[in-house]
Amino acid sequence: MAASLFLIPTTLGDTAISKALPDYNTIVILSIKHFIVENIRTARRFLKKTEPSIDIDTLTFFTLDKHTSKESLTEFLKPVEEGYSVGIISEAGCPAIADPGAEVVAIAHRKNIRVIPLVGPSSIVLALMASGFNGQSFTFHGYLPIDNEQRIKTLKMLEQRMYSEEQTQLFIETPYRNNKILDDILKTCKPVTKLCIAADITLDSEYIKTLSISDWKKQKPDLSKRPCIFALYG
Amino acid sequence: MAASLFLIPTTLGDTAISKALPDYNTIVILSIKHFIVENIRTARRFLKKTEPSIDIDTLTFFTLDKHTSKESLTEFLKPVEEGYSVGIISEAGCPAIADPGAEVVAIAHRKNIRVIPLVGPSSIVLALMASGFNGQSFTFHGYLPIDNEQRIKTLKMLEQRMYSEEQTQLFIETPYRNNKILDDILKTCKPVTKLCIAADITLDSEYIKTLSISDWKKQKPDLSKRPCIFALYG
Repeated sequence: MAASLFLIPTTLGDTAISKALPDYNTIVILSIKHFIVENIRTARRFLKKTEPSIDIDTLTFFTLDKHTSKESLTEFLKPVEEGYSVGIISEAGCPAIADPGAEVVAIAHRKNIRVIPLVGPSSIVLALMASGFNGQSFTFHGYLPIDNEQRIKTLKMLEQRMYSEEQTQLFIETPYRNNKILDDILKTCKPVTKLCIAADITLDSEYIKTLSISDWKKQKPDLSKRPCIFALYG
Repeated sequence: MAASLFLIPTTLGDTAISKALPDYNTIVILSIKHFIVENIRTARRFLKKTEPSIDIDTLTFFTLDKHTSKESLTEFLKPVEEGYSVGIISEAGCPAIADPGAEVVAIAHRKNIRVIPLVGPSSIVLALMASGFNGQSFTFHGYLPIDNEQRIKTLKMLEQRMYSEEQTQLFIETPYRNNKILDDILKTCKPVTKLCIAADITLDSEYIKTLSISDWKKQKPDLSKRPCIFALYG
């Protein structure tokens, strides 16, 4: 097969590889010597966890974060032009979904490099599956605005769109602010609107529950510092 | 662990289990005796492929399709109340995403039954990862309207929302109408708008490519009868 850009998902937190990733991913990983990663230390740890016998010192790592220039991104794909596949490893879950990487993929397409996504855990999809909400039409919004007024306005807009388009609305928050956004949701949305809270997905402490806003008001969970997806539906 | 409702993804088409599903899913499957499925024949085939030694005749299957009544759905969850986990197996990819199942999940939440989603291939997420488009904000619309005028109007609306909200817009079409919708996209969207076509995801014939509308006009692929995700971005 021609050298390609592989998109390599990782586990969501400290789960066993076999719980969240197909065996095939390991075969692909072992065939690659060049990796684009957000954080070299966690990427090395992931590779060791995937295959303890892997010889990390023979691998080349390129760091991709918000400081990486566009020229560097193009440079990262050089090995593909020389016949060696390159892998993008995410920090958690799927590369390029609520995670950097999309820009490298876009450059690969412009250079006519084949892009191959591997299967792995997407907290967005797992939350949506388990929510009981509409999976035929949904929007993921990423983070809502931090500013209080803007945030309440956005929540109202999402709820309105959810009702007018029968579309599930998903979003996330920085884990230490989860309790704050839960309060905002509970005070902003209609009592009959349904909220799914999906925390610690795929972990032993996984917690996924759908209730109406009025029922959540009676039993507010502590979501502080737990990675969490919020979904609204009617 | 208490009896739960497991959401069990399948491969997208005729791919090896090890390419698309974690080993853990097999362990869960082998612990379950009651399955909610869209089509018993394909579900049995999937279970045999997962574990050839499985004794299909000891399993109970409930059929879930558009003819299934709400009372039956509630009935399907009876085993959980008796201490036996139930699994929903999709026809392709993830249950309850562009696929039935969401209603059973909703009933499970109302009955306070734990819902556990397993990792598997979502063509929507794989297409989005590989598109190079915005993965921080995206909408999946399912099928666009069949009526020609409505369909063009919807495409224009999606393109407009894509620009105004910087949001990737994804949708699907019945495979035998893929070439028709591709024509509609090419004649409706702006020449600079980018279109990602992701066909036969995870199969040997996988084809994922992002080009501008004007470039697609010069090299139109034949997408007839290939399962396909379309994504638009600016």
